[in-house]
Amino acid sequence: MSIEPAQTEHESVVDPDDFEQLRQLGQRLRIDSVRASSAAGSGHPTSSMSAADLMAVLFARHLRYDFDAPDDPRNDHLIFSKGHASPLLYALYRAAGAVSDDELLSFRRFGSRLEGHPTPIIPWVDVATGSLGQGLPYGAGVAVAGKRLDQLPYRVWVLCGDSELAEGSVWEAFDHAAYEQLDNLVAILDVNRLGQRGETMHGWDLRLYSERVRSFGWHAIEVDGHDPVAIDAAFREAAATDGRPTAIVARTLKGKGIHSVEDKNGFHGKPLADEREALDELGDIPPLRVRVAKPEGDAKPHVFEVAGGALPTYEVGDKVATRKAYGDALTALGSMRGDVVGLDGEVGNSTYAEEFAEAHPERYFEMFIAEQQMVGTAVGIQVRGWVPFASTFAAFLSRAYDFIRMSAISRADLRLCGSHAGVSIGEDGPSQMALEDIASLRAVHSSCVLYPSDANQTAKLVELMADRPGISYMRASRGAFPVIYSADERFELGGSKVVRSSDGDAVALVGAGITLHEALAAAEKLAEDGIAARVIDLYSVKPIDAATLREAAQATGGRIVTAEDHWPEGGLGEAVLSVFADGDERPRVVTLAVGDMPTSGTPAELLHAAGIDADAIAEAARRLVRG
Amino acid sequence: MSIEPAQTEHESVVDPDDFEQLRQLGQRLRIDSVRASSAAGSGHPTSSMSAADLMAVLFARHLRYDFDAPDDPRNDHLIFSKGHASPLLYALYRAAGAVSDDELLSFRRFGSRLEGHPTPIIPWVDVATGSLGQGLPYGAGVAVAGKRLDQLPYRVWVLCGDSELAEGSVWEAFDHAAYEQLDNLVAILDVNRLGQRGETMHGWDLRLYSERVRSFGWHAIEVDGHDPVAIDAAFREAAATDGRPTAIVARTLKGKGIHSVEDKNGFHGKPLADEREALDELGDIPPLRVRVAKPEGDAKPHVFEVAGGALPTYEVGDKVATRKAYGDALTALGSMRGDVVGLDGEVGNSTYAEEFAEAHPERYFEMFIAEQQMVGTAVGIQVRGWVPFASTFAAFLSRAYDFIRMSAISRADLRLCGSHAGVSIGEDGPSQMALEDIASLRAVHSSCVLYPSDANQTAKLVELMADRPGISYMRASRGAFPVIYSADERFELGGSKVVRSSDGDAVALVGAGITLHEALAAAEKLAEDGIAARVIDLYSVKPIDAATLREAAQATGGRIVTAEDHWPEGGLGEAVLSVFADGDERPRVVTLAVGDMPTSGTPAELLHAAGIDADAIAEAARRLVRG
Repeated sequence: MSIEPAQTEHESVVDPDDFEQLRQLGQRLRIDSVRASSAAGSGHPTSSMSAADLMAVLFARHLRYDFDAPDDPRNDHLIFSKGHASPLLYALYRAAGAVSDDELLSFRRFGSRLEGHPTPIIPWVDVATGSLGQGLPYGAGVAVAGKRLDQLPYRVWVLCGDSELAEGSVWEAFDHAAYEQLDNLVAILDVNRLGQRGETMHGWDLRLYSERVRSFGWHAIEVDGHDPVAIDAAFREAAATDGRPTAIVARTLKGKGIHSVEDKNGFHGKPLADEREALDELGDIPPLRVRVAKPEGDAKPHVFEVAGGALPTYEVGDKVATRKAYGDALTALGSMRGDVVGLDGEVGNSTYAEEFAEAHPERYFEMFIAEQQMVGTAVGIQVRGWVPFASTFAAFLSRAYDFIRMSAISRADLRLCGSHAGVSIGEDGPSQMALEDIASLRAVHSSCVLYPSDANQTAKLVELMADRPGISYMRASRGAFPVIYSADERFELGGSKVVRSSDGDAVALVGAGITLHEALAAAEKLAEDGIAARVIDLYSVKPIDAATLREAAQATGGRIVTAEDHWPEGGLGEAVLSVFADGDERPRVVTLAVGDMPTSGTPAELLHAAGIDADAIAEAARRLVRG
Repeated sequence: MSIEPAQTEHESVVDPDDFEQLRQLGQRLRIDSVRASSAAGSGHPTSSMSAADLMAVLFARHLRYDFDAPDDPRNDHLIFSKGHASPLLYALYRAAGAVSDDELLSFRRFGSRLEGHPTPIIPWVDVATGSLGQGLPYGAGVAVAGKRLDQLPYRVWVLCGDSELAEGSVWEAFDHAAYEQLDNLVAILDVNRLGQRGETMHGWDLRLYSERVRSFGWHAIEVDGHDPVAIDAAFREAAATDGRPTAIVARTLKGKGIHSVEDKNGFHGKPLADEREALDELGDIPPLRVRVAKPEGDAKPHVFEVAGGALPTYEVGDKVATRKAYGDALTALGSMRGDVVGLDGEVGNSTYAEEFAEAHPERYFEMFIAEQQMVGTAVGIQVRGWVPFASTFAAFLSRAYDFIRMSAISRADLRLCGSHAGVSIGEDGPSQMALEDIASLRAVHSSCVLYPSDANQTAKLVELMADRPGISYMRASRGAFPVIYSADERFELGGSKVVRSSDGDAVALVGAGITLHEALAAAEKLAEDGIAARVIDLYSVKPIDAATLREAAQATGGRIVTAEDHWPEGGLGEAVLSVFADGDERPRVVTLAVGDMPTSGTPAELLHAAGIDADAIAEAARRLVRG
């Protein structure tokens, strides 16, 4: 792809060494931010104007990026963590010749790729932003990919607002970036003092911000964010800083350049009231072209040599926890392909991610107890084509739910494993029991929700997850259960298995994970009563194997019992109901799930109390059959 | 309730002024932590042992708490943010005479209130912990209630682990506690260097921690966490510190007192291998009784005088956004009752919480862009009986999902309002569109999910939320739609409204919020085709009005169309399906929802593109009716 320069003949090229021209470029970016927002009738011009000079200097003198080749691994990365400053970002693209003026003015219109907040529909955008406090975590992820995986000298620039420094996730990023010594990462803090509805907690207290980031291990530089010479010096100082990331703490004016809104509250997220007047005040500055430097050298991304190998296999009948099979399989996958990366939130000895860490330390990231940054790092490294698998207790993935939601908008390819799901973990109690993960992860766009019951199945699914686009989630169990599938059994995303059936099945029992084993035990009990039960292993809750469920409904005269170690809402039971919603076949479906708040106890006691054990499944089936 | 001292005759009472006895108390707490974990066969004795001396000094010399009267408003509050140190907490209860030795040894057993992690089933526990990084945010909430609402001199003590300082949420708490000048709050950082699987990021770098908390505006004191004299001095220094909270940064040894595990990795979350040997090493220290000082004085919680008033009312036909009605109603409710408190995450001019802030500034908390701390503060103030309503964009409540999940385990009474739900917000794009909130909030235990379509309805539901136990969530819309209910219409949690019906209804259209208005428009279109459609306003998605839905299924010959501005999974459609799962009546239900990732555009364009506008609803209904 080659981008035709837009209106080149009318545009003068900025001399990067002429700081007066850089001032003019900043002003022109303000003009285009105002124009785009006015054309849209909405948007955030004042938030764009505060950062215009910072970005003008970055684009003209420091960024190394080939807009014709956004996939060039040597490119720098620029992330607008303050995604609402999208008018500025798009004005920069226009100045770089990457988008035309017409396209700039399509901002926020249906069908335009220039959305209200940036998304990777735009080829030069790595990640979606717009939920504040996420850009720096993603940037730290890209930067750590540069240091430890790609081993390339690209730099990562993240433009942050000051309001978003109130988000804890930002401090996870500060912590991790310093821990990983990411001197290829620069956070540009646009301290314009004003949030959406008034002043931030800390106003223009630049000293406070720089002391905080220094205490987190960063180099900090305070600067007048409207002085191109000072900005340039700060960028140079950042480039010269070794062993730690740099934060440029810039004092800026929101709405800079237009008296009626400059440093005034009440103008967030609004186009200028009088566009003509605003443009007059900004001055008669023609469109300017900035020649962004392209990356130099011919370095290639590092490739990890691998020894090869095969997925682990397990003997039928052996008791193996699916979390153990996850760790085994991920470790094997790491030996089979060099692009697989492991991350874990300080529970690697529970999720068995520690096996990967031991086998492939150079491709393992210990994320400590920082689930938001764990997902942030995973998203950042997949920007560069790596294949991250991130694990923690399933309950604690809820900590990163906004990050997972945004990852879907980022079109990220992400693999998550949540262990210790459900009441069946036992004594640790409800704080450690994921009971909402199926519902919340099903409700993520592009997601796949897997819940294996068996070690061989787990291994096969881990391998399939590696090549799946979008957000893939595996729910793993704490307890060890008998292997039921032979190692050569095949599984697929969107599949299920009929693990027991006969010609005379009177009812179908649908479970996954631990409840599949309970369903099998229930079928035995039912057989004693002369009731033949089909048992379905719904290991792929999303996408769901509608055909097998429909067949079961037909075969059993429309009698289905589902059981899940999860709240009733949004889980496996409702997923099954959705298959039959408007079909011709609409079976009677009894959905067993955890109703009351669990406590501590043994797994068996808690499964029984929740009414999802074999006894409860068998009893529900009997009622259906005799009902 | 009066608690019978357990085995008093065998127990000597600790002299709080004898520091050698305080050492012995610490050691006895270790003994009981080991005993409880060994009896349970699981638990976290080594994490308890590091903090035993800190807590011994606190209980004997600084805590003011009446175990016979846990609801006494003058009581101090103690929160174990490191909830896995529950053996220590329960050992403290035993030392205080609040639980018997027998009960202590029921730890983690089914039926015991001494669960693996503390929950408010125990009368002396304010909040559930066990998801790390949440105790300090809750503590900051209780402390701000003490300062600004109760206006009582109680103090809040939070025991934090060092591992959990990696959670960004902790830094939100540090930020807000300093901003609110909470000198009644003391964070005790038990820096034992070791996490679950190895060393923390920062080991024993006490200086790093104290510099960080100082940069966040706290007073910090470094101390040897096993020296009762030094610990006592630190607590006294904290008490004497005005205008800011204090962090006691204590160097401790995990597993302190038992050579085989002390300061060694690999012993997290495990009972001691040899209980007898461990107890021998800890020494022959008899059970000790500590007399915890009761609160003094006769101060009563502050009562906010209110002017009275009534809920706002709106004229049928006027266009009013439900978010505006939320702000109006909350403000009115604040005038009607003095216990209502408002919180917002720096979008009060969008959620209209700013109206409450203006009318009742003394009961309003600006939480800036820190959704986790917003929920943390709300949970903290409801501990003291206040009635919090917290609002932000519905999309950004996903940032606090783990806090909301844990709030249910805390048995918290919490009211959340999420505005700007769905694609119908328009131009801002998907990062700002909640499309998973119904699914994720339905899957919270004890939750209620409301989605009003009308301003009068919104006001009535806000009032009902105030008295509802558990987690209540209201989904509010950005756009203004015509008021359809008169101001004297009645609504209930768990209710619905049939807003259009006739004898010959051939199909039922079920919507809520914006899709209720689309359903009404669809019914008009269908009427032109000679198809009579019943329209149901399912404003209470959970609990759901099963009776009205069943009646509609019967009346229409089993034809229902649902429409929701939400992903298909776990939302309104599946909630409707769950009503009919195993009933005799199992209608054909077409569930319309947002399938593809939305972009920017006008609300009408986006509703149309998503297939949830009047045209799509009418078309689905036609297909159902014509079969």
